[in-house]
Amino acid sequence: MPDHIRIQEVLQMEPPRPSLTIKGWVRTFRNDQFIAVNDGSCHENLQVVIDPAQFDATTLKRITTGAAIMARGELVASIGRGQKVELKASQIEILGDCDPETYPLQPKKHSLEFLREHAHLRMRTQTFGAVFRIRHSLAYAIHHFFHQRGFIYLHTPIITASDAEGAGELFQVTTLDLQHVPLNERGEVDYSQDFFGRKANLTVSGQLEGELGALAFSRIYTFGPTFRAENSNTTRHLAEFWMIEPEMAFYDLNDNMDLAEEFIKYIIRFVLEQHPADLQWLAARLKEEESKKPQQERFEMELLEKLHFVVENPFERITYTDAFEILKNSPHNKKKKFQFPVEQWGMDLQSEHERYLVEKYFKKPVIITDYPKEIKAFYMRQNDDGRTVRAMDILFPGIGEIVGGSQREERYDRLLQRMQELHISPQELYWYLDSRRFGGCPHSGFGLGFERMVQFVTGMNNIRDVIPFPRTPKNIAF
Amino acid sequence: MPDHIRIQEVLQMEPPRPSLTIKGWVRTFRNDQFIAVNDGSCHENLQVVIDPAQFDATTLKRITTGAAIMARGELVASIGRGQKVELKASQIEILGDCDPETYPLQPKKHSLEFLREHAHLRMRTQTFGAVFRIRHSLAYAIHHFFHQRGFIYLHTPIITASDAEGAGELFQVTTLDLQHVPLNERGEVDYSQDFFGRKANLTVSGQLEGELGALAFSRIYTFGPTFRAENSNTTRHLAEFWMIEPEMAFYDLNDNMDLAEEFIKYIIRFVLEQHPADLQWLAARLKEEESKKPQQERFEMELLEKLHFVVENPFERITYTDAFEILKNSPHNKKKKFQFPVEQWGMDLQSEHERYLVEKYFKKPVIITDYPKEIKAFYMRQNDDGRTVRAMDILFPGIGEIVGGSQREERYDRLLQRMQELHISPQELYWYLDSRRFGGCPHSGFGLGFERMVQFVTGMNNIRDVIPFPRTPKNIAF
Repeated sequence: MPDHIRIQEVLQMEPPRPSLTIKGWVRTFRNDQFIAVNDGSCHENLQVVIDPAQFDATTLKRITTGAAIMARGELVASIGRGQKVELKASQIEILGDCDPETYPLQPKKHSLEFLREHAHLRMRTQTFGAVFRIRHSLAYAIHHFFHQRGFIYLHTPIITASDAEGAGELFQVTTLDLQHVPLNERGEVDYSQDFFGRKANLTVSGQLEGELGALAFSRIYTFGPTFRAENSNTTRHLAEFWMIEPEMAFYDLNDNMDLAEEFIKYIIRFVLEQHPADLQWLAARLKEEESKKPQQERFEMELLEKLHFVVENPFERITYTDAFEILKNSPHNKKKKFQFPVEQWGMDLQSEHERYLVEKYFKKPVIITDYPKEIKAFYMRQNDDGRTVRAMDILFPGIGEIVGGSQREERYDRLLQRMQELHISPQELYWYLDSRRFGGCPHSGFGLGFERMVQFVTGMNNIRDVIPFPRTPKNIAF
Repeated sequence: MPDHIRIQEVLQMEPPRPSLTIKGWVRTFRNDQFIAVNDGSCHENLQVVIDPAQFDATTLKRITTGAAIMARGELVASIGRGQKVELKASQIEILGDCDPETYPLQPKKHSLEFLREHAHLRMRTQTFGAVFRIRHSLAYAIHHFFHQRGFIYLHTPIITASDAEGAGELFQVTTLDLQHVPLNERGEVDYSQDFFGRKANLTVSGQLEGELGALAFSRIYTFGPTFRAENSNTTRHLAEFWMIEPEMAFYDLNDNMDLAEEFIKYIIRFVLEQHPADLQWLAARLKEEESKKPQQERFEMELLEKLHFVVENPFERITYTDAFEILKNSPHNKKKKFQFPVEQWGMDLQSEHERYLVEKYFKKPVIITDYPKEIKAFYMRQNDDGRTVRAMDILFPGIGEIVGGSQREERYDRLLQRMQELHISPQELYWYLDSRRFGGCPHSGFGLGFERMVQFVTGMNNIRDVIPFPRTPKNIAF
């Protein structure tokens, strides 16, 4: 195994240590003496101290921001401020040069827009280092949480012939030659010549297949990429994003809510424990960004406050109907301050309504249940009132809906009827209906958009800044 | 949280326990008295014992194979053979009926082909239960292994404009209307009207983007779906499969081999420890399957023997050139027993050659290094001999190549020259070349086909039987 030690480990060692090797990239080089080296393992740099007299001028000149170096020497207690230890290096080796004249990342602050155009290099910056380390820890915490609780990680298909929600805008997947698309005698595309022998697209959700898994293993979760060909250039949409979709047999909506709340708190707490330095950096970044906004647009809570707010408060649970009444009767609504006035039961709640409930009214995360069936998907369990379904959405400060879930309709006849009402083909989804014919049982699940969660935890406003290589309309670089 | 307890946990409890609730599916119901219930949490069933006199005939009739039930009662030591505890149920509730007349899974052995056509239900069988529980544990062990060693899980893009290997057969991703594909004035497809403004396809590997991550975080790994539009209907190919691709800065080929070997042994050992019952079931299944083959086609080792063989033997490391000589001079080759005779240095090794080295010659897993550059990818580090590259392939008994990796070419000029020789556009891959211009450094990585590993560990011969919903030519069901 390699002889060098990760800087994260070095920084936790007790000095002195006679001989130690590190490898990383130069952040800064001051006074021909102090090299700040970072290897991406943590936010902090290791200070490497050299005696310039010991090194030739050529080597010193090659110690530039971005260059990869090896440093070997003695780890000693640091007399300088800001670090506990430093490496007194007797040996330096340049492993990879970095021309300071052409290197796009200069030792100054770059805009997020600029860095987005240099996504192949931005992971080396402090901000994106923090974002992607936290993204990693969230992913790990998710796997760990479910594994500990006996959930099976199920890989649902990415290429599929079905459109789970019956609504998404789909990316088509094909091996046909687009310049010479074969047509049949009716002038339609002849999909019998396509790879799968029929029209295929990228999945918008693994839920329906996930339900099949839950009816075999009791508890499963998915964690995979999903796709929307929505032509919207916003800070909240990606064409390619990752979703987590747990699905549990023998769970009703209350069990579902309990699990979702425990899950969310667990993964945020995990990051709070593992990444104090990264979070502090991001909190300071956010604070500075917010300070440039006009007062009324600023978000009231700081990043760490917001995370603790979620972890420490029991989520408020309320039906859609009650939430609707609160909103309708709110001073905010009466003064016509909502862009979408709250008047008609059955309307879909907008982000502004969700944020009002969370940030102004309850002042804690809110779970809204029992939505009107007309604004929810066909597979949600119908309530006896004939107009609502056992849905739940979890609403977060600053972000609105972060989780959507429901108890599923396990009654074959009810499900079939709803599919027919919505013109969803029972033949196409025979396998889904089969799960209700053969040992179907009450079950529930929810979906979490992974990037939304990374946004929430890192305080990054633009969703393009929380995935390494974002895919959006007209943008497929790298 | 729900009041029922997973059967895996129940089976580990010390009897007696006064009141306990379980939920699961009926495997068998004997003598109106003994219900074998499984909830997918483990291979073993829980025996639920009822006094038929306590239940009405309608309920008893609904306790059929596949039905979902709740059972509540006292957990007691079992006097019967085959189980330590059993549940004396005072209460039974049918949660979901299963009509024995139409249920495709009868309480008998079904062929794997039949079950493939019923992939929505096959996860409920003992064989596929075992396969997918083990698949889960392998995935979890992978995340755990890398997390513990400071690797960052990097989500590389699924939709991409680049073809990493320059070789794969690609699935195209589009939102154009295939019946009316827009053409430009030259009669070519007008991709400016497509979603991404240019031709897009599904990734064949995340490696190139992974390298960018390694040059920021030192150590990263990917674990995501990859795609090949290869029109081959074999037991070894899927159009959609999952890959793990770790990439490490400051690792040379030896470090890379050390890591790969440690990694493979770790994840297999994890399954050996966690899934003894599932493995035993699969071993018996394989043994029976093998027994039907003619003697000379049978695999010599049994499943558990094969797993221990890998975990307990240091992998043999040998150069391609030495391996070539061994093969060329082998009695097997001289007697012309290879389908592809070993004659010319530079030839690619076939599965039969790989298996000969592993199973006959070394009798342990083998890592072959320093392959001829002409049969390897452009990004592998060139050796000074001018004809080989720092590649490594790990070969396994029964399966041949399971891991492919290399030290990467970190020298800008050499990389550029090789790309030009192979007509790979430096303009298209400017971002990849940038990683060599700015603080590039020695680095290495490898790729593991996840399904190949699941096949190896479960002993399933057909790769379609180790992924929940396989995608192959003309097959996109579910």
